Amino acid sequence: MHGADYNPDQWQHDPHVLEEDIRMMKLAKCNVMAVGIFAWSALEPEEGVFTFDWLDRVLDKFAANGIYAWLATPSGARPAWMAEQYPEVLRVGPNRVRNLFGARHNHCYTSPVYREKVAIMNKQLAERYAQHPAVVGWHISNEYGGECHCNYCQEAFRGWLKRKYVTLDALNMAWWTSFWSHTYTNWSQIESPAPHGENLVHAMNLDWKRFVTDQTVDFCRHEIAPLKAENTELPVTTNLMDAYEGLNYWKFADVLDVISWDAYPTWHDASDQSNLAAWFSFNHDMFRSLGGGKPFLLMESTPSLTNWQPVSKLKKPGMHLLSSLQAVAHGSDSVQYFQWRKSRGASEKLHGAVIDHVGHEHTRVFQDVAELGGALEKLTDLIGTRVPAQTALFFDWENRWAVKDSQGPRNMGIKYEQTVLSHYRAFWEQGVPVDVIDMDCDFSKYKLVVAPMLYLVRPGASERIEQFVANGGTFVTTYWSGIVDENDLCFQGGFPGPLRKTLGIWSEEIDGLHDHEMNRVLFTEGNALQITGEYEVRELCELIHTEGAETLAVYGDDFYAGRPALTVNAVGKGKAYYIAARTDQTFQSSFYKQILKEAGIDGALQTDLPAEVTAQIRTDGVNEFIFLMNFSSTTHTITLDEQVYTDMLASDSASSVKISSNLQLQPYGVRILKRSKR
Amino acid sequence: MHGADYNPDQWQHDPHVLEEDIRMMKLAKCNVMAVGIFAWSALEPEEGVFTFDWLDRVLDKFAANGIYAWLATPSGARPAWMAEQYPEVLRVGPNRVRNLFGARHNHCYTSPVYREKVAIMNKQLAERYAQHPAVVGWHISNEYGGECHCNYCQEAFRGWLKRKYVTLDALNMAWWTSFWSHTYTNWSQIESPAPHGENLVHAMNLDWKRFVTDQTVDFCRHEIAPLKAENTELPVTTNLMDAYEGLNYWKFADVLDVISWDAYPTWHDASDQSNLAAWFSFNHDMFRSLGGGKPFLLMESTPSLTNWQPVSKLKKPGMHLLSSLQAVAHGSDSVQYFQWRKSRGASEKLHGAVIDHVGHEHTRVFQDVAELGGALEKLTDLIGTRVPAQTALFFDWENRWAVKDSQGPRNMGIKYEQTVLSHYRAFWEQGVPVDVIDMDCDFSKYKLVVAPMLYLVRPGASERIEQFVANGGTFVTTYWSGIVDENDLCFQGGFPGPLRKTLGIWSEEIDGLHDHEMNRVLFTEGNALQITGEYEVRELCELIHTEGAETLAVYGDDFYAGRPALTVNAVGKGKAYYIAARTDQTFQSSFYKQILKEAGIDGALQTDLPAEVTAQIRTDGVNEFIFLMNFSSTTHTITLDEQVYTDMLASDSASSVKISSNLQLQPYGVRILKRSKR
Amino acid sequence: MHGADYNPDQWQHDPHVLEEDIRMMKLAKCNVMAVGIFAWSALEPEEGVFTFDWLDRVLDKFAANGIYAWLATPSGARPAWMAEQYPEVLRVGPNRVRNLFGARHNHCYTSPVYREKVAIMNKQLAERYAQHPAVVGWHISNEYGGECHCNYCQEAFRGWLKRKYVTLDALNMAWWTSFWSHTYTNWSQIESPAPHGENLVHAMNLDWKRFVTDQTVDFCRHEIAPLKAENTELPVTTNLMDAYEGLNYWKFADVLDVISWDAYPTWHDASDQSNLAAWFSFNHDMFRSLGGGKPFLLMESTPSLTNWQPVSKLKKPGMHLLSSLQAVAHGSDSVQYFQWRKSRGASEKLHGAVIDHVGHEHTRVFQDVAELGGALEKLTDLIGTRVPAQTALFFDWENRWAVKDSQGPRNMGIKYEQTVLSHYRAFWEQGVPVDVIDMDCDFSKYKLVVAPMLYLVRPGASERIEQFVANGGTFVTTYWSGIVDENDLCFQGGFPGPLRKTLGIWSEEIDGLHDHEMNRVLFTEGNALQITGEYEVRELCELIHTEGAETLAVYGDDFYAGRPALTVNAVGKGKAYYIAARTDQTFQSSFYKQILKEAGIDGALQTDLPAEVTAQIRTDGVNEFIFLMNFSSTTHTITLDEQVYTDMLASDSASSVKISSNLQLQPYGVRILKRSKR
Repeated sequence: MHGADYNPDQWQHDPHVLEEDIRMMKLAKCNVMAVGIFAWSALEPEEGVFTFDWLDRVLDKFAANGIYAWLATPSGARPAWMAEQYPEVLRVGPNRVRNLFGARHNHCYTSPVYREKVAIMNKQLAERYAQHPAVVGWHISNEYGGECHCNYCQEAFRGWLKRKYVTLDALNMAWWTSFWSHTYTNWSQIESPAPHGENLVHAMNLDWKRFVTDQTVDFCRHEIAPLKAENTELPVTTNLMDAYEGLNYWKFADVLDVISWDAYPTWHDASDQSNLAAWFSFNHDMFRSLGGGKPFLLMESTPSLTNWQPVSKLKKPGMHLLSSLQAVAHGSDSVQYFQWRKSRGASEKLHGAVIDHVGHEHTRVFQDVAELGGALEKLTDLIGTRVPAQTALFFDWENRWAVKDSQGPRNMGIKYEQTVLSHYRAFWEQGVPVDVIDMDCDFSKYKLVVAPMLYLVRPGASERIEQFVANGGTFVTTYWSGIVDENDLCFQGGFPGPLRKTLGIWSEEIDGLHDHEMNRVLFTEGNALQITGEYEVRELCELIHTEGAETLAVYGDDFYAGRPALTVNAVGKGKAYYIAARTDQTFQSSFYKQILKEAGIDGALQTDLPAEVTAQIRTDGVNEFIFLMNFSSTTHTITLDEQVYTDMLASDSASSVKISSNLQLQPYGVRILKRSKR
Repeated sequence: MHGADYNPDQWQHDPHVLEEDIRMMKLAKCNVMAVGIFAWSALEPEEGVFTFDWLDRVLDKFAANGIYAWLATPSGARPAWMAEQYPEVLRVGPNRVRNLFGARHNHCYTSPVYREKVAIMNKQLAERYAQHPAVVGWHISNEYGGECHCNYCQEAFRGWLKRKYVTLDALNMAWWTSFWSHTYTNWSQIESPAPHGENLVHAMNLDWKRFVTDQTVDFCRHEIAPLKAENTELPVTTNLMDAYEGLNYWKFADVLDVISWDAYPTWHDASDQSNLAAWFSFNHDMFRSLGGGKPFLLMESTPSLTNWQPVSKLKKPGMHLLSSLQAVAHGSDSVQYFQWRKSRGASEKLHGAVIDHVGHEHTRVFQDVAELGGALEKLTDLIGTRVPAQTALFFDWENRWAVKDSQGPRNMGIKYEQTVLSHYRAFWEQGVPVDVIDMDCDFSKYKLVVAPMLYLVRPGASERIEQFVANGGTFVTTYWSGIVDENDLCFQGGFPGPLRKTLGIWSEEIDGLHDHEMNRVLFTEGNALQITGEYEVRELCELIHTEGAETLAVYGDDFYAGRPALTVNAVGKGKAYYIAARTDQTFQSSFYKQILKEAGIDGALQTDLPAEVTAQIRTDGVNEFIFLMNFSSTTHTITLDEQVYTDMLASDSASSVKISSNLQLQPYGVRILKRSKR
Repeated sequence: MHGADYNPDQWQHDPHVLEEDIRMMKLAKCNVMAVGIFAWSALEPEEGVFTFDWLDRVLDKFAANGIYAWLATPSGARPAWMAEQYPEVLRVGPNRVRNLFGARHNHCYTSPVYREKVAIMNKQLAERYAQHPAVVGWHISNEYGGECHCNYCQEAFRGWLKRKYVTLDALNMAWWTSFWSHTYTNWSQIESPAPHGENLVHAMNLDWKRFVTDQTVDFCRHEIAPLKAENTELPVTTNLMDAYEGLNYWKFADVLDVISWDAYPTWHDASDQSNLAAWFSFNHDMFRSLGGGKPFLLMESTPSLTNWQPVSKLKKPGMHLLSSLQAVAHGSDSVQYFQWRKSRGASEKLHGAVIDHVGHEHTRVFQDVAELGGALEKLTDLIGTRVPAQTALFFDWENRWAVKDSQGPRNMGIKYEQTVLSHYRAFWEQGVPVDVIDMDCDFSKYKLVVAPMLYLVRPGASERIEQFVANGGTFVTTYWSGIVDENDLCFQGGFPGPLRKTLGIWSEEIDGLHDHEMNRVLFTEGNALQITGEYEVRELCELIHTEGAETLAVYGDDFYAGRPALTVNAVGKGKAYYIAARTDQTFQSSFYKQILKEAGIDGALQTDLPAEVTAQIRTDGVNEFIFLMNFSSTTHTITLDEQVYTDMLASDSASSVKISSNLQLQPYGVRILKRSKR
């Protein structure tokens, strides 16, 4: 699928626009549009008065021209009349002040009126369009996010807590409210976190974030119900955002039929793009994993530039193809844009689009889009294929919330995301596919599980990790793991808490280093990983004691010089590694290279990849599709192995081409190679 | 006129102060004082009770001693009793919270009560003083500014919108409210921009700023009416601020008899003061242009230092004279200070003044002031003279608001003011007088019109520009011009919109560059401007296509190397230049030097000026008065041409002095030369 | 005394914890605990229901095991039921919004209900425990601070002002409200400072700060009354904070029996720790002076790290002993910690404690604590000894408030605290004991008084300074002194106002320097201080005229080169020095070395101390106890004089050891030497 968000509701005054758009969609080989996002005012201009004729026209035209639609529910923004008539639909901030009408995402997910209005609207849409030939699925709302602190939400939060804890005693113990005399003696005393109220009870913050996720998921279910009532077959999705912190996306996994997300890399913002490219690869892997490994959709991306980043940078030649196919490489079955046509006014009028204000197709951007359309047509074999990952990386929302909310050990920045990315990047550089999961996922099927800074450990996770290792798996974790339970209560009896036995170490203290400080990690003579030399560590250094584990490397400096910095513990058939300090990218590269070898995990290609180049893989079980992607501005030559590869993007789409063992990758170049599964 | 703000209302408890002040005013050769600013509590200590006796005494003393007064209306601050009795007079912030009593400028310009109280006060003042021999004019309020979001203002805003758009359909189309479902179906749904409401509808933001200006101008008219009712001859002014963004000062042009403004340069904050000096020259030119070219007044400046800048720096010897005469050079007929005498307490007690807390005249600052007083006495020939500018520079408030409010192409800072200044400075360095106008002014009389970043183009402007060029004028504009109409709706059909034909180019895309990036502009062989070599460009680069225009320079780097970066289009008898990228000061210097030559525009002096030195010119039609000003800390020698010059500041004020062709300018030195008009 | 804050109320669910804690307290040689801070919910779980049994158990156990308690009043946090029942107890912010329940210190000190509830609670505690054998004193509330702007506080503020000024005329004159028309005509018009109201009337800001102090002190008295009613002998203290700006701590001096404070240095945050060490020495000296020179208590410090600093850094070996004994060196008779045992949850769970989450004593931190416990046992001779300072340094709260609130001369940062510290550090480096006082203290007994930036001079101070000098004292002050009176009204007739005569100079102007600027101070040939060479000055330079004073050094640069920069004026038997510019640490070192010699003041040791090493002294009148403290990471050798010293921390505690004249100080090493008083 190739397409874009499309807002014909903005162009009702000029019918010529729709004609032109359809003509150009075909030119650009676009076959799918997300329609109706934010169209509430156009669909229900006054309360109870519905105007679907314009949408009928659009969808009928689509059907007649072989274009499909993700039809949106318009709940991403509510009309002015609704805000005026029912102020309760507007969101209330943490400062307990209700917003005025304006912006988008400015509504309460608890408000009975808003839920009622949404139910009516969605029912109308479903009744009219659930069987429409152009409609391939539902695009629920838009980029769910934010939170509301209105009285409805306060009551809902208290209800949520009552269901979870049953008694105030249980809540008081879990929240450790005896600290600072915060013991609650009545449910009504509980309020959501506030800048001018409570904000330092970590377990409460955590529960509030859980509640916000649950309430949003519940709202999403509420949106879906009337749609499914008309046609259970039509899939639903909602567009998610890269590693968005406000919502635990894993809770959406069961609610959505298809996972889709919006990717907006700031390409060309630095001379080395590895980190940026790896971050978006990481997100693609995460959203694929969220859908259980099934293909996902790239629902939004910009065909040229954005208008909301600090600098709106043009994509250099090649980058549009590369960036789009990066999504496909990691499991996307579509490339879609925000947006088809630039709006004339308001805040996003300067956001990139397929059709510029100039109004015609004779632009560089349009040509880039059309070129990609051509490429996608050659990739139909890829539809439905999977990514065969043997490695899993934990990226866990509750852990993320908790570790960032903690006061100490380094309030300047605990850097959870950057740390996870740094571990991920070691695999990306070596072309090794990775699933990105949370700790509740089943990870027994992998060979290697990596869990950086596993600060919060939910019940059961440590047991399953122990089992995983005992069964022959390799587990890697780091400093600042096993600190708190699911309520952010510290584990007693020695860190890393429930992981202590598996890892065979006790972490006594953690030292925060200033930005101007560093320590070194020295590998011991003849260590089992056969790594030599020293590596810099910064920011966080734990002082640990081995309790059965073997020391692979020690600190080089400060009063803890000589104490263990990297350990491995043999448990059953597997091994558990502990990295006691914040290591850098060079350490990660060296370390995981050996770990992968030890665990018997191969990359997509049996070759060394240049910097800023990655290889990714999809497979249908018979064939393997290798994506070679060069994110650098220089040409690289890749040496292939002995297998037979065919180039799927070669100009003659009917016949595939046998390629030489030395393959050239142009600046921002991408090649998709097909081979038989080994 | 030479004088200061004077607040005898603060010294009523000590009658000796007035005696001393009058004695010292004469010593300092001061002949005008702005009296009564912020004196409301002293004039009406309780509601309806007026106490004018102290003001009678002051003005009578003035009259008896040859000192004149700009008599202020006291509306710049309201008394505590009024705020207590009528809270509605206090301003409401964008967060919709009403201010408490305190500060100044803290009142609503819409409030009926405030308007009533002001009308009564001004009537009282006018009845008593409109014919007083000491009073030379009215000083209306003080530094109008700010905005109020109270319900009165909301209603007034809606009324303003109704008058402008008549129908909601028209408003919805102009504001492009179909975006994000913001269509208004009832006027009452409209609220002023708010951080917790609407703030991303650019056309609404623009209309709100227009409304704020109109409401403030209306308040100013309301203040003036009772004053003019008593004496139509007495001129009115209000003190404006350097390029103040909140109000479109052009809307005040018709309301005021005389333009005056307050200048507070942060002298000596950098080793090179060119940019600072040019910025204040630019403002002087702008305020002079605002008054239709008539002399303006420097209403406030500091005789020593301020107390509100980050660092309160003393003026070095010479700087007081230089800075004061800079205003005169650009068309001021006065030098006035804030303030005559330092207040003993509250926030401005440490602001510089002619009379220090020490209370006597034996201070360095007083001597500087008296020296200037002496100089001004020698410059009576200058009164009423004009600045003969053949160049006009656009500095347009609505464009400024819109271009800065836009999201993209470089949210890190679009730098409208700095860009305009950079173009202005090319003229300043070459001693070329400039008028600073907005796009509605009549610019047909100039030889050269420069319009940097003319993002917003109001109806008619492009037609008048085309006519100007066709008639032989030279027009220069840059990247990011012709993007939106007066409602911030993008022009369709290709940028630079209505200027496309005149400029002979189509701008397809604009690339934002990061701070660490640059591109180059290479002049083509044998280009018409005869400029050679290359120049750095940064931040913004447009990718344009010529459509009739000639390419003078091309890009040197990136994927658009070789594409046009500077073009000229011949239209009728004139030429239209387009600078496609953000060029630096060295480019501006080289470019405009050739443009001036081509357009036949001379500087004030036929000589090359050293860095940090400028020459400015005033003329009475017969004589020309050349101001040579050295803003550097080193001595410079200026080579004059063959004409006969006399030094107006020479020690013997009766006879003028013939000066040699090599003229010395001391550090921070200023010379005023008189010659016959060529 | 050696001990910690202890919160058994958090561990009521696990009785084993108390047993273990008592066992380990003895192991750590801890003999005192602060109990019950923030225990309100545990003591009064619902209104009027008191539960003292758990506290009975704790205190009885303590008594049985030789452990003493500072028993806290729990007013540092109020229970949830109280906030729900009586919202008026919650604090109102400057924005006039009442806080929600949460955090601590979140209550109004004026609220009648809160005062009533506190009175009942304290009476209950006193009746039950005032005679308990384990209780050694009362720990009143916790770290008083903050302010409330509720209507009760507004009324109280107005009442305070009425008592102070009697008439509005007097207030209007003192506050100089004629500026900006702020004249108050009714007491009800007065509101506390607000971001959206008045905040620029300096005298009002000053009075508000005074009121906040007075109201807090009054609340503290209110807390103490019921305690003293039961047992007048039991001392009261409250834990103060390092140089906390919000409260004028001198107003607490009469209310408290013992001064105690909480010290949290960020050790190891820079390679040179002199400034940090000196700052904490300064504070120790200040709190000792606050108690009239009597020993104070170090009520809180961390046994390992904090969790609220930007980086939570471990103490390196030796630092715990050094940092703890630094307090003792300056007059503390205790070392106490926050906290004994880490809480399991909420915001401070990761703050350092004697007992870690691991729950046992086999940790590095516990060993450090136990080592210190052993050392303290050897120092019983020190109990009650005094610090024999002959030098006093002014650190005056009202001056601090006023000088920082002033607009100009350098709003980038007037740096009052840093300036005072820079002068203090000259003495610290030379091992000279200093008392830190405010200007109302009796300073006639000192040989040297140093008053940096004495901007505000209260009535009487200048007369007492003059008398002090006339009687033979040495007085040193700096630029920006003698500017305003107690109402922040500028002195008229020439700065430094009432000090002008004593100093023999007139300061005409003050120049602010940018960060990139500097000037130099050149000592004159043969100056009386026998200092040669030049020193850099930055930020602030006054232009002064001598009026009887002798010039010792002059400026080297700018237009005031050659004008006096350092002067001395002989008055009676003494001398008054004026430093006209902001000098740096090297100047301070050279200057005060000569001043100390001239004034006949000795350091603790007659030897030159290495950098980062200080010597401090306590004496019982017969013996002198010298603390040699090395805050550096290198070993230093100190050469002692001829006297006989014994090492109090030597391993054999019974017999003291004669030490050689060359004494080694390890990195972060401390030695306590005893000698006979000379």
